[in-house]
Amino acid sequence: MSALYTLRAATANDAAAIVLLCRLLAEFERLPGPDDAAAARFADDLARSPAPCEALVAEQDGAVVAYAVFFASYSTFRARPGIYLEDLFVHPRARRLGIAHAMLDRLVELGRERGCARLEWQVLRWNEGAIRLYEHLSAHRQDDWVGYRLDL
Amino acid sequence: MSALYTLRAATANDAAAIVLLCRLLAEFERLPGPDDAAAARFADDLARSPAPCEALVAEQDGAVVAYAVFFASYSTFRARPGIYLEDLFVHPRARRLGIAHAMLDRLVELGRERGCARLEWQVLRWNEGAIRLYEHLSAHRQDDWVGYRLDL
Repeated sequence: MSALYTLRAATANDAAAIVLLCRLLAEFERLPGPDDAAAARFADDLARSPAPCEALVAEQDGAVVAYAVFFASYSTFRARPGIYLEDLFVHPRARRLGIAHAMLDRLVELGRERGCARLEWQVLRWNEGAIRLYEHLSAHRQDDWVGYRLDL
Repeated sequence: MSALYTLRAATANDAAAIVLLCRLLAEFERLPGPDDAAAARFADDLARSPAPCEALVAEQDGAVVAYAVFFASYSTFRARPGIYLEDLFVHPRARRLGIAHAMLDRLVELGRERGCARLEWQVLRWNEGAIRLYEHLSAHRQDDWVGYRLDL
């Protein structure tokens, strides 16, 4: 494998490759990932205009080895949009090349281009590898806040 | 004051009333709320189509006494949109009428109409009043997760 990779905006053609990686992420997070119906919906969603989310992918030797899915958030306190990073995953065989770091840098760039106030995301507390990267980037840990969710 | 209130989708005309309540929310949360430039941007943003966020307001005796601001999120694991509730605030003089509960119910309805997987939000850990309501609604507390933020 080459250590070279390219980063680009995902297209609808990348949906299947992203779902494969998303299932590895779900396995790593010990959570239920996308089933086949969700995989089909995701492909449809990426092809819609406007799409309900956007994605970046990293390619190495012609294969998609990493992805980030994100969508626009909004802060009333700042009255600015933001970027909410929903997923970021690098295939184990493509680790230690700086791909996750490069994707976060790209999202920061994109957020600045779009007049965003913030890039935000959540991480599982035991995911020490990811947390090391976020701390290295001087991201602010939001320990004062806790999430709530109602499944519909 | 009447105990009756009405809940409705906000329009651009509600922007100033929402900003006033948003500043009370920020004060309560001990965080910097919208300054005058943000207030002007928020009014512009609510008037845009598509707007970067949506809002509900509660009116009592012709005055806006509560608001909720939300935007569309996206779950790759479910391949469904969601509703992310950014702010929910009820003016102190309109408390104990069930307005916050009614707004959450309305957002659940709206999420179901839109095929959403989830309604999600965050709360400050010391905000016990709000947390009591969320627990009463059987919302799931996301203690396994912690947020990170990069200011742009």
